[in-house]
This record gives sequence, structure tokens and C-alpha cells, in this order.
Amino acid sequence: MAGSLPAHETQVRVRYGEVDRMGVVYHGHYLVYFEQGRTELLRSLGVTYRAVEDAGTLLVVVDTGARYYLPARYDDLLTVSTRLVDFGRIRMRFEYEVSRDGDRLATGHTVLASTDSEGRPKRLPADLLERMNSL
Amino acid sequence: MAGSLPAHETQVRVRYGEVDRMGVVYHGHYLVYFEQGRTELLRSLGVTYRAVEDAGTLLVVVDTGARYYLPARYDDLLTVSTRLVDFGRIRMRFEYEVSRDGDRLATGHTVLASTDSEGRPKRLPADLLERMNSL
Amino acid sequence: MAGSLPAHETQVRVRYGEVDRMGVVYHGHYLVYFEQGRTELLRSLGVTYRAVEDAGTLLVVVDTGARYYLPARYDDLLTVSTRLVDFGRIRMRFEYEVSRDGDRLATGHTVLASTDSEGRPKRLPADLLERMNSL
Amino acid sequence: MAGSLPAHETQVRVRYGEVDRMGVVYHGHYLVYFEQGRTELLRSLGVTYRAVEDAGTLLVVVDTGARYYLPARYDDLLTVSTRLVDFGRIRMRFEYEVSRDGDRLATGHTVLASTDSEGRPKRLPADLLERMNSL
Repeated sequence: MAGSLPAHETQVRVRYGEVDRMGVVYHGHYLVYFEQGRTELLRSLGVTYRAVEDAGTLLVVVDTGARYYLPARYDDLLTVSTRLVDFGRIRMRFEYEVSRDGDRLATGHTVLASTDSEGRPKRLPADLLERMNSL
Repeated sequence: MAGSLPAHETQVRVRYGEVDRMGVVYHGHYLVYFEQGRTELLRSLGVTYRAVEDAGTLLVVVDTGARYYLPARYDDLLTVSTRLVDFGRIRMRFEYEVSRDGDRLATGHTVLASTDSEGRPKRLPADLLERMNSL
Repeated sequence: MAGSLPAHETQVRVRYGEVDRMGVVYHGHYLVYFEQGRTELLRSLGVTYRAVEDAGTLLVVVDTGARYYLPARYDDLLTVSTRLVDFGRIRMRFEYEVSRDGDRLATGHTVLASTDSEGRPKRLPADLLERMNSL
Repeated sequence: MAGSLPAHETQVRVRYGEVDRMGVVYHGHYLVYFEQGRTELLRSLGVTYRAVEDAGTLLVVVDTGARYYLPARYDDLLTVSTRLVDFGRIRMRFEYEVSRDGDRLATGHTVLASTDSEGRPKRLPADLLERMNSL
């Protein structure tokens, strides 16, 4: 199924403070770019992360990872391509590719679990599930 | 009165990701070092920031500033010297000097206001006021 | 002269990790928003920060400050209004206002000094001075 | 061999700005804690990351990942337990466990590759290899 889901693309401009003393984007910042990718993918479905949280469901990162191929530099305009590759009643898995002018810089994934405000597993909101199913 | 209050010193080791492409600590990170300074100053008084917040009082930064004299580099061990220079029923003013081996790298200040969880002004906790008065 | 210089506006979407446990943007992140503001102002003049640095001139923050009026929240779309209020052969002073839907959230300033790669004062690039003079 | 290498432990105090609107440490900050762990492990071997870089060898993160079990909160004192689980002439693999009072909060890994300043693979410094071999 994963292969058939469309990727969502968003652009990110590298900020000064995101670059380390090697002159390249600090590896940890890619997790922030990934987050922008999935935030915008959800927004494109008509759902905001913020509204989900404000309605009492937290989407907690339980697993993440990244591989780095080529460095990004200050002021580069990056493309974050995000795919929702799997989801169930509780979990969603997103995969990412960050590129610049068609060159792949990094790939990664995050698994999010839906919980209540106490951290107990909780079904994803029906509205969100429906929209994901319609993809 | 300010001049007579003792400075509290805490050590900070510069992290890799805090250094920018010039090879020096990104200017914004000094605000984090300042925060560590005032957090540890309060802890030395027997009050934790966290306990204050958990008891319903937020300490909100309303004004801050910094001047930079010499750069700090990756892995440097810095000394943050923090002074509580003034306080009233609602506000506290802290001043900082960040140094390395006796050389002054930066100075700064923050003014914090005490509020309730809705952002309305609220007296500083009696316990905290008492401890500050005893300085 | 300052008053006559036009403000440059850029938009910033608040990221998840920029919000602290009070649910509002961490005060230190405003310095990053300010930086985006001046980066885009310079870009609008046809000069990139990156090109200036790559040509051997560093623009070092020597003084900064911010005042906070109202909180920004996760996913807010902010407007950073940036003004170049003064400049000489070595220094530039930028002032900022961050707002949301017309409400002023914060104001601030930064003073940048032009140096060589060893940190010694150095004239601002002729090209940049010329473009600023033409404002 | 991995199993026989001792873990190195270092302490990290959670900073205010590292906590997100859920009141827990933002998942991306664990990569910074991991980095502190391996930096201190290397220091305990008598080698500093900074000296390695200053001598012309970059240690570039090529792969990283983390799993999250329990949340960390503001002002928590965390233990980062770091193990060098494998290394060759070019690469090193570190694994981490972050805990609080004996409870496991997160685990993770990073693979670092040794490169020259142009990003070309380069042997790890002889001195570092020797010290790792002596473990």
C-alpha cells in the first residue's frame, strides 16, 4: 500500500544557527525538517497537529532514524518529501527524503503513537483516520 | 542593594550543535546559558523553577539582552556568573557574565515576570520572596 | 534617517520544538526569527549573508535584545518586520517587530559588526554598503 | 567484542528550552544527549573530539536512530550510558541508553564516519584507534 501513497513536498530554508562548525547542517536538525514535512502533509489532508493536540490526543514520537548521504549548507533551499507509509488505530509511520536540486541528502522515518494526556495509548481521532484512509 | 548580592557561578560545557559555521557559539545560545545560570542560582536558594511552575506560577521572560565581547568555541568550559540584581512583588532582574579562564565573553540580563497560567500578573511565591530577601 | 527606511516583512511558521512547556514560543527562538528577518531583508537587496561570508567577511552579532508582549503558540504564522535603522562602515543595526494578525508579540534589535575571519574589524563589503545607501 | 566494552556514563540536566508543549523533552534533543555521551566517552579515553577535528579529521554522523520508552521532564537529571560497540578503520558505532533513577527512557545509536575536510573517507587517527583497541 505504501508505494501507492503520494509523497507530500515542502520546502525548508536552512537557517544560520542550524549549521555547525563543519559548515553543514547539524544532523539533529533533520528531525525538525522531518517534523515540518509531516506537519504539512497532515495540513494538506485538512488536519492540523495543533488541533489534534488541542482536542486531547497527543501524537508521540516512539521511534525515529535518519541516514545522511550528502551535507546541506547554510541558506540552502531543501525539499522535504514525506510519505505516510503505514498506519493503524494507534500508530502512524512516516518516511522522508530530504533533497536539494534533486540530490538526495538524507532519508529517515518516524513512528508516532496516539496517546491521551497521561501517555496511555488511545485511538487516533476518527476524523484523521478517515482522511488517511481516503488517501 | 544590587551590588551587595553575591554572584552565583555555574559551569557550562559548549556542545557541538551550539557552535555555528564561524566555529563559535551561536549568539542565541547565550540565552540558554543565562537560563542555566538563574536556574542554578534559584536552586542554590532552595527553590526550583520547576516546583514554582508546578505550583501554578509561571516566570515569564519579558525583557532580555546580551553583549558579546569574545567568542566561545566548541568544548570550552564556560563560567556563567549570575546575579539577582533587583526584584519586586512581580518582577525579578538577573544579570550575567559568561567567562572562560577569567576572560569576559558576554554579558546580559533578563527580566522575569510572575504570572498565573493565563498570563495575568501574580505575586511571586511568598517562599521565593522570603529567600530572596534573606540574601 | 531610520524612520524613512522601509520595513521588510517575512513570514515564519512556529515549529513544534520551538514551543516550551508553557505552550508558548521559547523566548530564545525570537533571536532566530530576527535572523530570518535580516537574512531576507538582505536577500531583498540582492545580497546574501552566505555570499558575504563566503567572500571572507563575517557579520558578527555584538549586541542584541528583545522585549516580549504577547505569547506566540505552536503553528502560528508570524510576521517578522525588519528595519535596517542605522549603519556605518563597520556596523549595522537592525530592529524587529514580530506580530500575528496585527498584534505585536515582541520587538528587538541586533547590532552586527563586520570582521575578517580572525575577528578583526573590517569594512563592510562595498557592494553591500552601496545597496544599503540606495535605500 | 561489543558486549565486553564498558559503558561510559555521563549526567545531563534537562534544560527549560528542551521541553516541548507536552511538558516532555522534545525527541530531537536526545541526539544532543547522545552526542554528549560519546564526547565524554572519548574524553575519558584521553581524546577530544575537538582535537581530532582541529587536526583535520571530521567525524561525520552517517546514521542515527532512537527509540523512546518513557518521557523525560524539565530539570530531570538524566544518565546517558554510552558504549562504543564497533569500530573499523573508518567507522565507529556508538549505542546509548538514557535513564532516570534506573528507568530506561530511550535508547539509540549513531554511526560516525571519518573524513577529511572535503568529506572524503579517511582513516581514523592512529592515536584514537590505538586507544579504542586498548579498551
